Amino acid sequence: MNAAECVIRTAETAGVELCFANPGTTEMPLVLALDGARMRCVLGLHETICTGAADGYGRLSGKPALTLLHLGPGLANGLANLHNARRARTPVVNLVGDHASWHRDADAPLTMDIEALARTVSRWTARMVRASEAGSLTAEAITRARAGRGGVATLVLPHDLLLEEVAEGVPPMPRYEPAPAADPGAIAAAAELLRGSAASALFLGGPALWGEGLRLAGRIARATGAVLVCETGFARLATGAGRPPVRRLPYFPEQAQALLDGFAHVIGCGAKPPVSFFGWPGKPSRYLDDREGVIWVAGTEEDAVAALRELADALGAREDHPGTRHDPPPAPTGPLDGAKLAAALVRELPEDAVVVPTAVTNSYPFSAIAERARPHEQLALTGGAIGEGPALAIGAALAAPGRKVINLEADGSGAYALQALWTQARERLDILTIVCANRAYRILRLELERSGQAPTGRVTRALTSLEDPSIDWVQVARGLGVPGIRVDTGEALVEALRRALAEPGPCVIEAVLS
Amino acid sequence: MNAAECVIRTAETAGVELCFANPGTTEMPLVLALDGARMRCVLGLHETICTGAADGYGRLSGKPALTLLHLGPGLANGLANLHNARRARTPVVNLVGDHASWHRDADAPLTMDIEALARTVSRWTARMVRASEAGSLTAEAITRARAGRGGVATLVLPHDLLLEEVAEGVPPMPRYEPAPAADPGAIAAAAELLRGSAASALFLGGPALWGEGLRLAGRIARATGAVLVCETGFARLATGAGRPPVRRLPYFPEQAQALLDGFAHVIGCGAKPPVSFFGWPGKPSRYLDDREGVIWVAGTEEDAVAALRELADALGAREDHPGTRHDPPPAPTGPLDGAKLAAALVRELPEDAVVVPTAVTNSYPFSAIAERARPHEQLALTGGAIGEGPALAIGAALAAPGRKVINLEADGSGAYALQALWTQARERLDILTIVCANRAYRILRLELERSGQAPTGRVTRALTSLEDPSIDWVQVARGLGVPGIRVDTGEALVEALRRALAEPGPCVIEAVLS
Repeated sequence: MNAAECVIRTAETAGVELCFANPGTTEMPLVLALDGARMRCVLGLHETICTGAADGYGRLSGKPALTLLHLGPGLANGLANLHNARRARTPVVNLVGDHASWHRDADAPLTMDIEALARTVSRWTARMVRASEAGSLTAEAITRARAGRGGVATLVLPHDLLLEEVAEGVPPMPRYEPAPAADPGAIAAAAELLRGSAASALFLGGPALWGEGLRLAGRIARATGAVLVCETGFARLATGAGRPPVRRLPYFPEQAQALLDGFAHVIGCGAKPPVSFFGWPGKPSRYLDDREGVIWVAGTEEDAVAALRELADALGAREDHPGTRHDPPPAPTGPLDGAKLAAALVRELPEDAVVVPTAVTNSYPFSAIAERARPHEQLALTGGAIGEGPALAIGAALAAPGRKVINLEADGSGAYALQALWTQARERLDILTIVCANRAYRILRLELERSGQAPTGRVTRALTSLEDPSIDWVQVARGLGVPGIRVDTGEALVEALRRALAEPGPCVIEAVLS
Repeated sequence: MNAAECVIRTAETAGVELCFANPGTTEMPLVLALDGARMRCVLGLHETICTGAADGYGRLSGKPALTLLHLGPGLANGLANLHNARRARTPVVNLVGDHASWHRDADAPLTMDIEALARTVSRWTARMVRASEAGSLTAEAITRARAGRGGVATLVLPHDLLLEEVAEGVPPMPRYEPAPAADPGAIAAAAELLRGSAASALFLGGPALWGEGLRLAGRIARATGAVLVCETGFARLATGAGRPPVRRLPYFPEQAQALLDGFAHVIGCGAKPPVSFFGWPGKPSRYLDDREGVIWVAGTEEDAVAALRELADALGAREDHPGTRHDPPPAPTGPLDGAKLAAALVRELPEDAVVVPTAVTNSYPFSAIAERARPHEQLALTGGAIGEGPALAIGAALAAPGRKVINLEADGSGAYALQALWTQARERLDILTIVCANRAYRILRLELERSGQAPTGRVTRALTSLEDPSIDWVQVARGLGVPGIRVDTGEALVEALRRALAEPGPCVIEAVLS
């Protein structure tokens, strides 16, 4: 067994089932080792697809996928979505090949400071310096990725060492460090606040927003009347009929501040104390600073589900929240806009779907009414690095076979990740991409208008417009192996959604917004 | 005048004429400032297009373009091509917006360690900490980018400071530090070697490969019989009829070593001593180590043209090299391969074209016979980060209006940069992209075969194949606003080339290789 085989066998022994790869010459020993493994390997045409897919997979499965990346430039290409994964606290293990150890100081063309790049997104970064470490470092990378809430671990693997025979074999897997428990004092204090009659909110993130966590949060909401509020950029949210309603913290600061100011008490769990997305002039930076009635029972590193369980116990909250009702809006008609698009999707959304609402402006109308749809889950953009949606959808589809994945994408952010459609086609993934084609980086025009500037200058118009030419998404999708259809009315969208949702496999609907 | 306006006016005063942008909210003050400027602004749908275009523009014009990038994720997306620019020693000035300075420690979603990212590719990195520095830091960024051979400079600009009024105005521009002169002792020693009768080579890079540098190198070759050899990954090469022949150092190490071993003396100028692209087992790392008869008259930071002038003077080499003859190969017929594709391109290449031969394997057959074409220039991949070609072509077309730009691209590397076609369409750039569609990452299969491994395993085949589905480049191009045609014979390729070269504007030829 050579070191490359030891890396892959160790990963398989640890339960890793998937590798998103765009390998090069230095990674070939790992590719050959994968030939002898059971792990599924998925090719991305650009590394940003690999890392975004690993994020989506990790969020839904709770397990790390491998990414296989080609030296510094390959890692660099994947960094933006690793940044999103870091913000989502997704377990991901990057295997980054490097030059032979004896060749590194020759400063050959591809040489970069890989560790400097890796550290910007990784909670753990290491370089193999002896082949005998192959198994132990791989085990440690996986352990670090899975510890607590999860995170990104990056292991740099020089080519010559990967080829060396190793005697060590697959090491025993270290225990995953569980997330630390909440502070009992904080639980008691939070329970005390929630027992009062003042308006209260639970501000939730991470595992408090799905599965057992959300169920416990719903019980607390039912018992105390507290409102559930989630991070703007949540990693994963279960919503729709039968789930407790959760309000998404608005993107714009005055709306976010107004929502939070409406509560005398805010109990945080699984999230960081909320901050504004940008530092807008005259607007707040941290929404909950300098006020009373704020208690955090679990931050981003503590065990949020355990904290909710203790809090529910302390409150005697034992009954599940009845949840929202399936209450779809009427079918939209006429020329499309974001609200009509949201209405159509909420009507047609199949049960247990995974929605990836990464359209920068047009995800919000959907978020506002998604609780009226059939029960489903959503994966949002956590780190603000746009263009992740089509790759997140790949990872989600691989983590959740049998569930329809729907990427509600913008034309601006979707254009970052055209290459993802090819992987969706190759892997026959059950992904519907709805491109909200408003032919602009609309958010930038909104931001300018909000700041009192008209987006009418020559350069401002050009740099915020996606016209001249407009992207023909149907042709692009077909060129990459995915069938597509263009619609511009509510009627046509509903019809296209029904067809697309009835058939498995990837599909693109270009929804032209007026 | 606010700080953003001061940044842009300072850049214009320094002669900057172009900005490749994908801005976000934090960069809006700079976008508004650009509304009042003469500078041309070009939108890229992904930051890798912006940085690759800036590299192409800087290589041909000798001047830095600005890139305008959105915080850490925007810079991260552009890093791979900035790595190529660093290796090419291209002047580039990155303006990276950041959060308001008072918001940075709130660790909002987009917050990253921008400087850590920037330093991996930049010779100079700075952050504005007072608005009053806007002009002086911009002037310094431009000066550092232009100093010597050129390089990447990155300036981080917090949003709140960009909005502040500044009294300082546009500062005087510091003098560009010229590249230091060569060592006279090295010149004399090199001349001594070249006067002998033993086989000698000039190993050339940077400005020794075009314009006055190449002319001087040609004189020396004519006077002494020395062979001109260039870096594998040259930044810019003038070749074709009338130019002195230059042999490109082969990619594979045994071929490169054999070529260099054939010379008793190697005189280096404008390049680093050559190293192998990868550290292959049993192959050399540095080709010229441990041997005699090697003298470097100018490295990558010294003035290579001045060194060649002094060397030519010392040798009394005053007559220009007669150069190669226009000697196109016969028109190819039948099913296409890389050699036939090269023959067709060499036949049809218009005078003064700029060729971007970034197809990973299929650029080499073209390189081998390009000197028989009409005079033209080439821009190669310098840093090994694939996928730069379509963006390099954008920059070249903007730097050289009136000259046809031809990107000889692979399907594997071209798929990294589909988004570039949209910018080519929007800016009506005179770029012909020839996609060498072999439906594989062929280089990886070649590398495996060379290492004695058959690329036949399930995973190896999947991860090196671009089939299932094959990309339909004609549809993708049309979807992005660029007309396209598919050919699979020599006859059809020649016909398609003639049509495409006769008409201005972007075009894609998908050349399906057998």
